[in-house]
Amino acid sequence: MKALVYDGPGSRKWTDVPDPVIADAEDAVVRVDAVTICGTDLHILKGDVPSVAPGTVLGHEAVGVVEQTGPGVRDFAPGDRVLISCISSCGRCRYCRTGSYGRCTGGGGWVLGHLIDGTQAERVRVPYADHSMHHLPHEVDDETAVLLADILPTSYEVGVRNGQVSPGDTVLIVGAGPIGLAAIATAKLYSPLRIVVVEPGETRRKSAEVYGADVILSDAEEARAWVRDNTPDGVDVAIEAVGVPETFELCAELVRPCGHVANVGVHGRSAVLSLEALWDRDVTITTGLVDTSSTPMLLSMLAAGRITLPDLVTHRFGLGEIQEAYDVFADAKDTGAMKVVLLGDEADLTGQ
Amino acid sequence: MKALVYDGPGSRKWTDVPDPVIADAEDAVVRVDAVTICGTDLHILKGDVPSVAPGTVLGHEAVGVVEQTGPGVRDFAPGDRVLISCISSCGRCRYCRTGSYGRCTGGGGWVLGHLIDGTQAERVRVPYADHSMHHLPHEVDDETAVLLADILPTSYEVGVRNGQVSPGDTVLIVGAGPIGLAAIATAKLYSPLRIVVVEPGETRRKSAEVYGADVILSDAEEARAWVRDNTPDGVDVAIEAVGVPETFELCAELVRPCGHVANVGVHGRSAVLSLEALWDRDVTITTGLVDTSSTPMLLSMLAAGRITLPDLVTHRFGLGEIQEAYDVFADAKDTGAMKVVLLGDEADLTGQ
Amino acid sequence: MKALVYDGPGSRKWTDVPDPVIADAEDAVVRVDAVTICGTDLHILKGDVPSVAPGTVLGHEAVGVVEQTGPGVRDFAPGDRVLISCISSCGRCRYCRTGSYGRCTGGGGWVLGHLIDGTQAERVRVPYADHSMHHLPHEVDDETAVLLADILPTSYEVGVRNGQVSPGDTVLIVGAGPIGLAAIATAKLYSPLRIVVVEPGETRRKSAEVYGADVILSDAEEARAWVRDNTPDGVDVAIEAVGVPETFELCAELVRPCGHVANVGVHGRSAVLSLEALWDRDVTITTGLVDTSSTPMLLSMLAAGRITLPDLVTHRFGLGEIQEAYDVFADAKDTGAMKVVLLGDEADLTGQ
Amino acid sequence: MKALVYDGPGSRKWTDVPDPVIADAEDAVVRVDAVTICGTDLHILKGDVPSVAPGTVLGHEAVGVVEQTGPGVRDFAPGDRVLISCISSCGRCRYCRTGSYGRCTGGGGWVLGHLIDGTQAERVRVPYADHSMHHLPHEVDDETAVLLADILPTSYEVGVRNGQVSPGDTVLIVGAGPIGLAAIATAKLYSPLRIVVVEPGETRRKSAEVYGADVILSDAEEARAWVRDNTPDGVDVAIEAVGVPETFELCAELVRPCGHVANVGVHGRSAVLSLEALWDRDVTITTGLVDTSSTPMLLSMLAAGRITLPDLVTHRFGLGEIQEAYDVFADAKDTGAMKVVLLGDEADLTGQ
Repeated sequence: MKALVYDGPGSRKWTDVPDPVIADAEDAVVRVDAVTICGTDLHILKGDVPSVAPGTVLGHEAVGVVEQTGPGVRDFAPGDRVLISCISSCGRCRYCRTGSYGRCTGGGGWVLGHLIDGTQAERVRVPYADHSMHHLPHEVDDETAVLLADILPTSYEVGVRNGQVSPGDTVLIVGAGPIGLAAIATAKLYSPLRIVVVEPGETRRKSAEVYGADVILSDAEEARAWVRDNTPDGVDVAIEAVGVPETFELCAELVRPCGHVANVGVHGRSAVLSLEALWDRDVTITTGLVDTSSTPMLLSMLAAGRITLPDLVTHRFGLGEIQEAYDVFADAKDTGAMKVVLLGDEADLTGQ
Repeated sequence: MKALVYDGPGSRKWTDVPDPVIADAEDAVVRVDAVTICGTDLHILKGDVPSVAPGTVLGHEAVGVVEQTGPGVRDFAPGDRVLISCISSCGRCRYCRTGSYGRCTGGGGWVLGHLIDGTQAERVRVPYADHSMHHLPHEVDDETAVLLADILPTSYEVGVRNGQVSPGDTVLIVGAGPIGLAAIATAKLYSPLRIVVVEPGETRRKSAEVYGADVILSDAEEARAWVRDNTPDGVDVAIEAVGVPETFELCAELVRPCGHVANVGVHGRSAVLSLEALWDRDVTITTGLVDTSSTPMLLSMLAAGRITLPDLVTHRFGLGEIQEAYDVFADAKDTGAMKVVLLGDEADLTGQ
Repeated sequence: MKALVYDGPGSRKWTDVPDPVIADAEDAVVRVDAVTICGTDLHILKGDVPSVAPGTVLGHEAVGVVEQTGPGVRDFAPGDRVLISCISSCGRCRYCRTGSYGRCTGGGGWVLGHLIDGTQAERVRVPYADHSMHHLPHEVDDETAVLLADILPTSYEVGVRNGQVSPGDTVLIVGAGPIGLAAIATAKLYSPLRIVVVEPGETRRKSAEVYGADVILSDAEEARAWVRDNTPDGVDVAIEAVGVPETFELCAELVRPCGHVANVGVHGRSAVLSLEALWDRDVTITTGLVDTSSTPMLLSMLAAGRITLPDLVTHRFGLGEIQEAYDVFADAKDTGAMKVVLLGDEADLTGQ
Repeated sequence: MKALVYDGPGSRKWTDVPDPVIADAEDAVVRVDAVTICGTDLHILKGDVPSVAPGTVLGHEAVGVVEQTGPGVRDFAPGDRVLISCISSCGRCRYCRTGSYGRCTGGGGWVLGHLIDGTQAERVRVPYADHSMHHLPHEVDDETAVLLADILPTSYEVGVRNGQVSPGDTVLIVGAGPIGLAAIATAKLYSPLRIVVVEPGETRRKSAEVYGADVILSDAEEARAWVRDNTPDGVDVAIEAVGVPETFELCAELVRPCGHVANVGVHGRSAVLSLEALWDRDVTITTGLVDTSSTPMLLSMLAAGRITLPDLVTHRFGLGEIQEAYDVFADAKDTGAMKVVLLGDEADLTGQ
């Protein structure tokens, strides 16, 4: 079959690789109908994630149809339409037993497109299939469903839920990329009073408006001024959705006493934690990798139309056009790309 | 009356000052029977806390007997034996209404010996007396009770409770000064499996043993080695009880995924937050000033003998010997001082 | 001044009574601009609440303007437009310190129109004014604001929050009177998947539709059938908003394992708790009197238009027409009354 | 092999049955070294649990050594010494994913000795072995370990944890049978101020003293009097550990406003819930079947000597003497039996 293979820093190939096979009793092999590219994939390509070995098929988000299952798989059968979660879960380890699938120590966690071959391929082997896939309701089309593989539960669990967004809150979201927009959409599940977004990119600021942000600012200075004028104690919750020290530090600066800073961004460098200012401010700072424990709830809300993700997918390609898709996604500044989706020939585009 | 007055950086005087008077309807004036010196007082004397004006009477911890009350005080009357909390509370503001008295915006919070005259004096005016003092049960003597003014609720609320110590946990406490020891005593309220203390000072290590620490280590290297060998994922809870960047960073390094870092130390410098290592580890970091909301519970437990604080008071002086007491406390390295207590002539030493 | 006086079972008078005066330093006297009648007032009139002495002015919900304040009142001054909460709070007792104002043991709790003269009068004395009133933002008119005195925080705190309504939940609300409708409006703050209402009255069923209930059923049989067909495990949260044993028992029957039953109704009789069916079902049952601790949040959400209560007020009267208003409210079945509001001559009807 | 077979109401046989075999890939077959009899087994024998079919081997608590494992078992191998939990868990269903194993809908929950053959036999087949067994540390002997199969996690999870026992609490435990005693032992993990036990049996009252109850009373009248005199608001937490309506009702009567009633008892009849008294008291009532999610923690605490269960096992028998053991256990009133343990020839009695 064809797959997008990481060929070492700076190099990717859409090339022939052997078809995946059932290697473990709890495996499933799934035909990929829809797949997307994550910012993390770009990091891997830059060589920033040395745990990815050259030769690995990339990708950790997909929707497809089960083709084969190992004898230990109980909840899925060939023909089932499924969401493949970015997080695999052994279901047995200490972390999986408390819903912290992202920290699985039994061979799961983030492994797809990282430690084992991933989803940017015509087929993918999914380990621990019962714990790592979800049945898809017919109301949700493939293009929407694939956003549930990573981005939607990430922003909800690591941003909104860790941040303890509550009715009446003023919520600051720094960054209006895909994660930031999904954080707006899922923060609204808890009815904050105001969502304030900080985003330098003009296109993304417009998207934040579409998602219903109440206040949209361009940079840290505007954010400081808005807080000073509107909620001088600081914001109740600050969600970091970029991944650089400066945005984290801005969150820690603008959160109110007794408030929450929820870091969602993937960081490559340390930040300065101003303990001399924070030690007595009763703040709570959280970090996290998604667990995807909220996926069933999010899926039911998407199916019911209670969550919508308008225009999050900006570009669509055939699976074979993935190299072009990478170029478009990597050049988001010029192309305006948010999420690019690659669709196989048999993708379900209607959700009916 | 006599009082210990801050006379600008480096200078303190035990001198005559006017007697305090009822300035507000909710004030009480209390005769001081027992008072202690806090590490913060040393910081003030160094000039590190510019919000303290020269001429201020220092001290924010005391036990005494009420002499006068304003007409708005309902729960106390002259003659009552009381604990004066280090935190005053207006009872009305947004923060006081949710028990976050330390963040009071109505004229309370940490004001005694900071923004108004404090307790290192023969008498002290206590603002918002109903919300800022506690009746003392006869079972608790003055010397023990004064530890409840600050140190015991601080270690419990900001260390143990923020850290969410739970039965079965492995708890790391960095620093075995007064706060660290009180953290051991109050962590035990939740029955951790093991309490591991890191403390370079030999005398303090012995105290940690008296308090029942299970593992006592000397430095960061020993701590790293112990964690690696005994709980390689990391500790469930790490409590910072020193107040320098290195100890905070050690806590953040040694906490396990999904664990809690509770900062208690007072910091004067920023720390490095290694987000590149922490972003996906699901850690929770908290800071906080004590609220003293737990004081009634701690008081009942002390009175019942369910909490004991053996040998925490290492030195006793008469109130008029406070200058000597400061010298002993400031030179803790050589004197072995933990808490020094100053007792008035009418102090209750028996607790009966 | 004129006031509605309880004259013993079955009897009420709109009659002259002495003007209220400041009796305690923390009192305020407020001119009543808007007041409403609660189902509890009808219970009192039937003689069901023997703690109400004949001669008491009824009413525990009002909006008005401060006329006088005692010397212990800090946060309000004559001329301030205020919401008078149905719950007074001493601010000092064990319960008030943890936000359980409804259980105040210091002379607060539900006292207005119960143990002391209430709000159905031209003026009312409010004890512990700082803790028992709220400043009103100009965006909220008097008629809307008066719903915040009791009904809105009651349904939110005792129904929605105690019931732990969460995103994705199926929520059953039994009863679509004022409390049930407000429970729909406030349950939505947490984005349940579906709100299912059971209400026999046709008019109230229509109101439930206006409030956005997703499924509206007529009786217990329909409720059982709907649950069996749509969520056979049971509902996630069941909110009792009627106050008779049968509706409570229906909630306990239809809740799923690990679900929550939140009782809001005022009960005069015992219910049967089927422990033989429930002992192993991991259910949580809560009861409660409102604390009004959520009032500031609800007020900010009303002011921002994030909560709306369409058509909850069905009838409006002048304050002097209160006897007629009682008749209309007591005969809700025929008049279709939900909430009746009585407006003084200087009521703010515009909210601007 | 030999097994204790339920032969219809009133009848049990120690008889030959076929050896269990691996029927599912996730099964294990375990040699039973220690097993106990539960009050539930007596109920089954009375015919109170019609879901148990005649011919079923009884018993749901055991310790033993793995003999065989199915190909889907990853965490256990023949020769492993294991605790068999009274609750089996499929690990996949909605309830298992949130730790509510007792409510498993995938073929687990309480099935051993109920819906499938149980542990009162020389060997037992354990379904979903990875999720339903625990490795035993060598420090814990078989006799102690078997108490972890049901009784210890039941009292902890359903009594202490559901009841939210907290430092400083006054905790009422009604009933000092095995569950009540284990509730004392595990309530202490949270350092209540006082544990008050109500128990009519003199022997059990003595056991309550051994376990460290602070106040031991004989009946409801004494309990009412003690509460009136010592904590007139009521107790913070009331744990029902008997299983009859009267004891539940006593708990609901004596709990304070904002307190918790945790039902642990197995009930065969309905109780009266006095909503007319409770509706406004802010009480929380919980029920529950054990999940055994706390077993790993409890096991580590037992191994470390942090929990002890002195004298809980009152009688010991050989496995072949089980009929006599049943007689002794059923006649607890005269024999003073608490837990009876049956030991196989190869039981580990030393825990070393």
